[in-house]
Amino acid sequence: MSESAAIYVALVHHPVLSRSGDILTSAVTNLDVHDIARSSRTYGVSGYFVVTPIEAQRRIVDRILEHWHEGEGQLRLPERGQALSRVRTVPLVPDAIAAITALHGRKPRIIATSAQAPEGMTRLSFRTLRAELRASKEPVCLVFGTAHGLARSILDSADCVLEPIHGVDGYNHLSVRAAVAIMLDRLCGDSGP
Amino acid sequence: MSESAAIYVALVHHPVLSRSGDILTSAVTNLDVHDIARSSRTYGVSGYFVVTPIEAQRRIVDRILEHWHEGEGQLRLPERGQALSRVRTVPLVPDAIAAITALHGRKPRIIATSAQAPEGMTRLSFRTLRAELRASKEPVCLVFGTAHGLARSILDSADCVLEPIHGVDGYNHLSVRAAVAIMLDRLCGDSGP
Repeated sequence: MSESAAIYVALVHHPVLSRSGDILTSAVTNLDVHDIARSSRTYGVSGYFVVTPIEAQRRIVDRILEHWHEGEGQLRLPERGQALSRVRTVPLVPDAIAAITALHGRKPRIIATSAQAPEGMTRLSFRTLRAELRASKEPVCLVFGTAHGLARSILDSADCVLEPIHGVDGYNHLSVRAAVAIMLDRLCGDSGP
Repeated sequence: MSESAAIYVALVHHPVLSRSGDILTSAVTNLDVHDIARSSRTYGVSGYFVVTPIEAQRRIVDRILEHWHEGEGQLRLPERGQALSRVRTVPLVPDAIAAITALHGRKPRIIATSAQAPEGMTRLSFRTLRAELRASKEPVCLVFGTAHGLARSILDSADCVLEPIHGVDGYNHLSVRAAVAIMLDRLCGDSGP
């Protein structure tokens, strides 16, 4: 996997949608930080950005990270510290993009995710993206929305949108923690499509 | 998917292992109830058993379920109620087996999961089990451990053990929520192995 593209994950708390389709800022959930860090580490993701414009929430996440990097957590559960060492907080998606660009000397390809099929946008299949990740060294950033999904402005600014995970009978209400895990497994796992 | 085997999920809080390998009873985590119910509903799982011998914890879960079945939750987020309608609490794994046996008139095949490779046990691959689920109508119960995994007594009483999810560099510390999501996707998803 070290020879394929560098993959980044961004978990967005603003701008995301409410149930009724309004723009909102969701609260950071501690288990999102941990679960997605562990899934990211499992599949060799290079970095995981927790994106929230609320400074107080970034500070809380940074303190959690500190506990696991340098504090008692590191001693008690070293593999958790290993997973969380790839987490960074940033205010907005462009800040994550800028950080990746600075690391790689080139802008990453932005791949948005959505449980719905947004109108008029090109859909990338898991199989195609999996093959592209193996064939290219271009960095990519997979962007996930909390609450009821990414705002249209984020989808519009992405290079493409990944196909949704199809449930039985059209049910599409996975937790974002589960969706990230499944998508990483499909793209990077040893038994992908 | 309606023509294939009925699949059940059991999330076990006792007997499971501590970090040092002792037997313990872990606490029920609210997000485990929700996330695994949503993943189960997504992949057409017939029932999800939250297994804990602690009666007070079963009562708490039952109250959460009531809120989503009959209370305000049902009105506010009906698709969550739909996911949680498949959840039941039972004290021990044999109680889950008995409930499935009563429903189907036959004992389910018990498939344990483990992040490690237990010595001397037959390993079933995802590909093989996926094919078997499609070819048979025999009910199966996938058994997942919380904390540091299922106690040996549960593994020994199972019919077989599913292969682990392999991470990069041997890292195997997914959350149980992520592991259930990935395994259901590999076994029942539309782009499985």
